Amino acid sequence: MRTNTCGELSLKNKGEKVTLCGWIQRMRDMGGMTFLDLRDRYGITQIVFNMETNATLCEQVREYGRECVIGVTGTVAERSNKNPKLATGEIEILASDVHLYNRSKTPPFTIEENSDGGDELRMKYRYLDLRRPNVRANMELRHRLGMLIRNYMAGQGFLEIETPFLIKSTPEGARDFVVPSRMNAGEFYALPQSPQTFKQLLMVSGYDKYFQIVRCFRDEDLRADRQPEFTQLDCEMSFVEHDDILDMFEGLVRHLFSAEKGIEVGALPRITYREAMDNYGSDKPDIRFEMKFACLKEAFPAGKFGVFDTAEWVGGIVASGCAEYTRKQLDELTDFVKRPQIGASGLVWIKCATDGTYKSSIDKFYTPDDLAAVAAATRAQAGDLILIMAGADEKTKEQLGTLRLHVADLLGLRRSDDYKPLWVIDFPLLEWNEDDKRFYAKHHPFTSPKPEHIPLLDTHPASVNANAYDMVINGVEVGGGSIRIHDRTLQKKMFSILGFSDEEAQKQFGFLMDAFEYGAPPHGGIAFGFDRLASLFGGAESIRDFIAFPKNNSGRDVMIDSPSTISDDQLKELNLKTTA
Amino acid sequence: MRTNTCGELSLKNKGEKVTLCGWIQRMRDMGGMTFLDLRDRYGITQIVFNMETNATLCEQVREYGRECVIGVTGTVAERSNKNPKLATGEIEILASDVHLYNRSKTPPFTIEENSDGGDELRMKYRYLDLRRPNVRANMELRHRLGMLIRNYMAGQGFLEIETPFLIKSTPEGARDFVVPSRMNAGEFYALPQSPQTFKQLLMVSGYDKYFQIVRCFRDEDLRADRQPEFTQLDCEMSFVEHDDILDMFEGLVRHLFSAEKGIEVGALPRITYREAMDNYGSDKPDIRFEMKFACLKEAFPAGKFGVFDTAEWVGGIVASGCAEYTRKQLDELTDFVKRPQIGASGLVWIKCATDGTYKSSIDKFYTPDDLAAVAAATRAQAGDLILIMAGADEKTKEQLGTLRLHVADLLGLRRSDDYKPLWVIDFPLLEWNEDDKRFYAKHHPFTSPKPEHIPLLDTHPASVNANAYDMVINGVEVGGGSIRIHDRTLQKKMFSILGFSDEEAQKQFGFLMDAFEYGAPPHGGIAFGFDRLASLFGGAESIRDFIAFPKNNSGRDVMIDSPSTISDDQLKELNLKTTA
Repeated sequence: MRTNTCGELSLKNKGEKVTLCGWIQRMRDMGGMTFLDLRDRYGITQIVFNMETNATLCEQVREYGRECVIGVTGTVAERSNKNPKLATGEIEILASDVHLYNRSKTPPFTIEENSDGGDELRMKYRYLDLRRPNVRANMELRHRLGMLIRNYMAGQGFLEIETPFLIKSTPEGARDFVVPSRMNAGEFYALPQSPQTFKQLLMVSGYDKYFQIVRCFRDEDLRADRQPEFTQLDCEMSFVEHDDILDMFEGLVRHLFSAEKGIEVGALPRITYREAMDNYGSDKPDIRFEMKFACLKEAFPAGKFGVFDTAEWVGGIVASGCAEYTRKQLDELTDFVKRPQIGASGLVWIKCATDGTYKSSIDKFYTPDDLAAVAAATRAQAGDLILIMAGADEKTKEQLGTLRLHVADLLGLRRSDDYKPLWVIDFPLLEWNEDDKRFYAKHHPFTSPKPEHIPLLDTHPASVNANAYDMVINGVEVGGGSIRIHDRTLQKKMFSILGFSDEEAQKQFGFLMDAFEYGAPPHGGIAFGFDRLASLFGGAESIRDFIAFPKNNSGRDVMIDSPSTISDDQLKELNLKTTA
Repeated sequence: MRTNTCGELSLKNKGEKVTLCGWIQRMRDMGGMTFLDLRDRYGITQIVFNMETNATLCEQVREYGRECVIGVTGTVAERSNKNPKLATGEIEILASDVHLYNRSKTPPFTIEENSDGGDELRMKYRYLDLRRPNVRANMELRHRLGMLIRNYMAGQGFLEIETPFLIKSTPEGARDFVVPSRMNAGEFYALPQSPQTFKQLLMVSGYDKYFQIVRCFRDEDLRADRQPEFTQLDCEMSFVEHDDILDMFEGLVRHLFSAEKGIEVGALPRITYREAMDNYGSDKPDIRFEMKFACLKEAFPAGKFGVFDTAEWVGGIVASGCAEYTRKQLDELTDFVKRPQIGASGLVWIKCATDGTYKSSIDKFYTPDDLAAVAAATRAQAGDLILIMAGADEKTKEQLGTLRLHVADLLGLRRSDDYKPLWVIDFPLLEWNEDDKRFYAKHHPFTSPKPEHIPLLDTHPASVNANAYDMVINGVEVGGGSIRIHDRTLQKKMFSILGFSDEEAQKQFGFLMDAFEYGAPPHGGIAFGFDRLASLFGGAESIRDFIAFPKNNSGRDVMIDSPSTISDDQLKELNLKTTA
């Protein structure tokens, strides 16, 4: 149907007779001439129709609208006014024949980089939204990343092995999507939240290095930018320790940055969970900028300011060059930390003026020398602004961590083309849930404790560290994993700490614990959020536009109008009744 | 944990100190020495423990059993009795240290090429079954095929784009698996039987060349070798015609055979559905051998044998060199075609003796000259056996086609290492269902009729051919596809022929028909059964052992014991009651 695409012709092809197919991007009627931009996946080529030489054809084309699908035959000619922004900008096609393949109604929004369609409309007509060049670029990026990952992993000796989608519901973790079984009345499959147990079984089976780019499912109440189905790069290795896995997957990420973006990210810093919390107030710190916390409890002389005296933790960050912030700007920062999402009670500031003096919201409690000492403790320079928060240890650090990101945004320190990946290691194994009065696994129940912490499981479970690690890029957790338990007894103990009865553990994970009795090797792995990785590489905040057909925040696909009711016959066959 | 794998050491490494990890395949206690075969994914290496030099270590190892997981440190030495069958057969490791990582109970079956485990047991302990070298080779083959396909497709400019798994139930076609939506009470998602509509939307979106290796789901009553979830290589292209697609994907298949098996399959024959039925009695003919049907209705003189006189069709095949078949052998062939699965009423044979005479089960009806004329019509040679069936046209051809395969099996003409792919084209568009008194789409409702047959849709729908094609390899349909309808009006007409009301069509496929109003390009595609492709390349009949964790014929995963009941809380959250 075509000899070439709309993205490849150049002066080299001058004089050739070609046929292109595509969509009409736009048409400019210049009296004697009609210029038509023909678009396909590969680019845009200008087509020229001449009223003098072929009036019929020119008139025929003039009645076509935007987004009509046509085929054009013509001769490649040099353009008089070249367009250096366009790959094909040196040439145009002098059309001799046109075939109309399909007409188009006027699209409900413009098919351009910056569309005039709102989110709702774009999602309803996603097939039109996907025509926009930026969305297409995202899909192409995602495809390339998938290829790069697969070829790298295969090159490292990993096998891609597909694991089942119709598995078994396990109440631990997030909520499962379930699938009623028609052939086994009253029973249900579950869709996998991850292939976790299957990849561990593959290690028991001796597969040694497994990976898979695989869809996963979680029936959670959707927050912004969460999808009920998402894609994961899932990996597992045998006969490895903690650092073997970090080395392997930091190699992968280095390769991706190098191959896709030409960026050499170098060796990844490895910081502990404790360091991350203490320095950045986050277990996924953004280290594109410094702005580490200064611990100021000691720096402030005691007995002067009750709030600081009684606070469990007092800490500050330095906003470089912000000593001139106005009252309004400072109030905005205070309002920011007082928002319910953050929930701080207030914010203290110290301005380090360029003349060497200090001005502060707590002037009345401390002497200039006190403030100078605090400034020294924060390593603030003349011209800087110190922002200080106080309160309960972890909570205040998290609040200050959120402020740190906000200030960095204000200062333009979080450039989307700057990438600073790192590892966060040594996570706590368990998290106490005050509502349920029980421990939950911070990672998942298969994560191994640090070997040296195993004795603490009985006496101080809350202080046991996990043999776990997260990869963080620019403040986003893109991957996480752990060395797994490969010992039946330890796994049983772990289930018991998590409040499973022996029967429950056996019913839900008996197959895995049984497998551990037949020679389970030491193993560990990691999983990366592939949608998130793609959006990071695309320099975007949202994963939505890196998924071809995403769902909205109610889990609906508004384009196909799903979920939807099913017929009574279907329900009957499945032995189900709805109570809605 | 290890310096090397169990599959890579050779005399080059002589004298090196190495550490290997793996499973104990077996141990041979030779008094002063203990020989241990250590196995991992990569191979087997012989380890030697010497009672004289290290009695403690030797005794320690002797109490380990098969399938224990150990790490062994030692020195690479030259073997005195080399094992040329083993990649590492020139060397052995003189062990100096051993670490026991995990013990193993005695497995319920032997972990060897030919296991003594029955199907049920192997599936229950699939994680042990997967250790068997032949099953592992299947998984490795599947991985390689996936990589070869992806790199080939990407090299041809195709983008891998993921389509959603939580979609919408459509009653047309096979039965859907459905997924109740918690957030949309009373509503359900469906799991995709294929990404058909989404890939067509991607063409509407201008993606031009799409592929995906993707899981699909069908809630069918499982016949042998059907799985409720299966993997498909799904592809679609825009601005193409029938032959463009055949050329593209025959290129892919040629590449796979060449790269994986070193076999050049050459250009694929393209035969019509009609030719396939008339010559082989099958729309997926095995052309590794000739044995085409001879049409014998005219060859037999009329008025002599009522069965042939009244039969709609009489046809035969030639079993080369089988003139000496015994009565018993001929009876077995007759019994074969009379089995209920085939349902023929009988089988006629003519032996073409080497002395030029003929002997037949219908001697009493026909003269030797009659039989000689029939033999000539079949091109049988002296020494051949002619097998003849008669009856209703299509049905008899199918029966004879089944016999043809059976005879070829007997004659060893279906070698699993011989590959003869072909295209079958020009399928009928519709299939009449006598029970439902309606037409069903032979391929699916989106398949375009042959353009020249479109006028027949109103007058002779049964005789309309589809713009559709199947790829067949060795009697197995491995792929099928079609040029799609891209015109809303034609698509509506197709739905109406299939008995959809306008409302039904709009409710189920409105989004696709709406999309066709915004500039849908001409497009078409194909889907390959990836499990089947892998099993074919593996020279195996069953797909089961090319799937890591398959389900049994009741759709159960007996290893994880799924499907299973879910909790009342889960049911309540989903607004469901079971009536089982």
